Amino acid sequence: MKRILAVLVENHPGVLSRVAGLIRRRGFNIESLAVGVTDTPDISRMTLVVDGDEAQMQQVGRQLAKLIEVIRVIDLDASHTVARELALVKVLAEPAQRPQVLQLAGVFRANVVDVSPGALTIEVTGTHDKVEALISLAREFGISEVVRTGVVALQRGAGAVTFAEEEREYDADVLRI
Amino acid sequence: MKRILAVLVENHPGVLSRVAGLIRRRGFNIESLAVGVTDTPDISRMTLVVDGDEAQMQQVGRQLAKLIEVIRVIDLDASHTVARELALVKVLAEPAQRPQVLQLAGVFRANVVDVSPGALTIEVTGTHDKVEALISLAREFGISEVVRTGVVALQRGAGAVTFAEEEREYDADVLRI
Repeated sequence: MKRILAVLVENHPGVLSRVAGLIRRRGFNIESLAVGVTDTPDISRMTLVVDGDEAQMQQVGRQLAKLIEVIRVIDLDASHTVARELALVKVLAEPAQRPQVLQLAGVFRANVVDVSPGALTIEVTGTHDKVEALISLAREFGISEVVRTGVVALQRGAGAVTFAEEEREYDADVLRI
Repeated sequence: MKRILAVLVENHPGVLSRVAGLIRRRGFNIESLAVGVTDTPDISRMTLVVDGDEAQMQQVGRQLAKLIEVIRVIDLDASHTVARELALVKVLAEPAQRPQVLQLAGVFRANVVDVSPGALTIEVTGTHDKVEALISLAREFGISEVVRTGVVALQRGAGAVTFAEEEREYDADVLRI
């Protein structure tokens, strides 16, 4: 089963390598990973999509929470979560095929961000499945390159995962929301 | 100077940990990282934004290229690249403030993806600077949570970074485009 883990970490060199190493040693494959800064400049938020059952993921969550740079681990419940992904898809399209590719982009509310004589680059944002669907339809024309960000997610509603300054010094919690 | 590296890798457990470990040992801080599958299911594409000068980055590129799972390393020139990022921003907004937050989203062509009595979640896509600008304006209302994918990038035009099947077995090239 695919699960989404959000991990708040101190933005130190090496933290990514330690988190990735821990997950590898547990034998999980990371399907996607996105790491970006948060509103607090020295804290990054990692979003991992990992394949595993619930008991295994709880164990990984607890072990991640013990890493010194990890401030909080959040095991996100897909049914209360907004999850989105971004992809850039370069579609092969001779000028004669352009209208069809533009129509495909239109259906997905995707933007054309680059045009050249032989190709169009489409920027698409949405759920993992929406991005998959666009890529699968674009194959009909021929795809020359794809890059995907991996999924990022926030819980629905006004609730937020926050922490007090002093919590940085203790073992993190694993929150399930 | 910030540089964008794209790395095509065999999607094996452990590859992320090895790539992150190598970059850490060279003393670079990874500002953002996005890892997702490509159009070839067993190949992932990592996009790294790293701070470093050109000579250092060339060295890192060459060392990454020697890792057994790395198929290709691409040092992307910002002036010939489409680079995009996605962020979900949960903005604190009482019902009376909603029109102002919706107006902000409208200016950035961002979508409101969740509404609750105390907060709105905005999905924004664009360059790193555009995402920064929206976050900075949203601070006026109060931000409860932010998650960013990190930057992904493709070179402009019809050119593509491809490789032949047999290249998987050799040391990778470092391409500068």
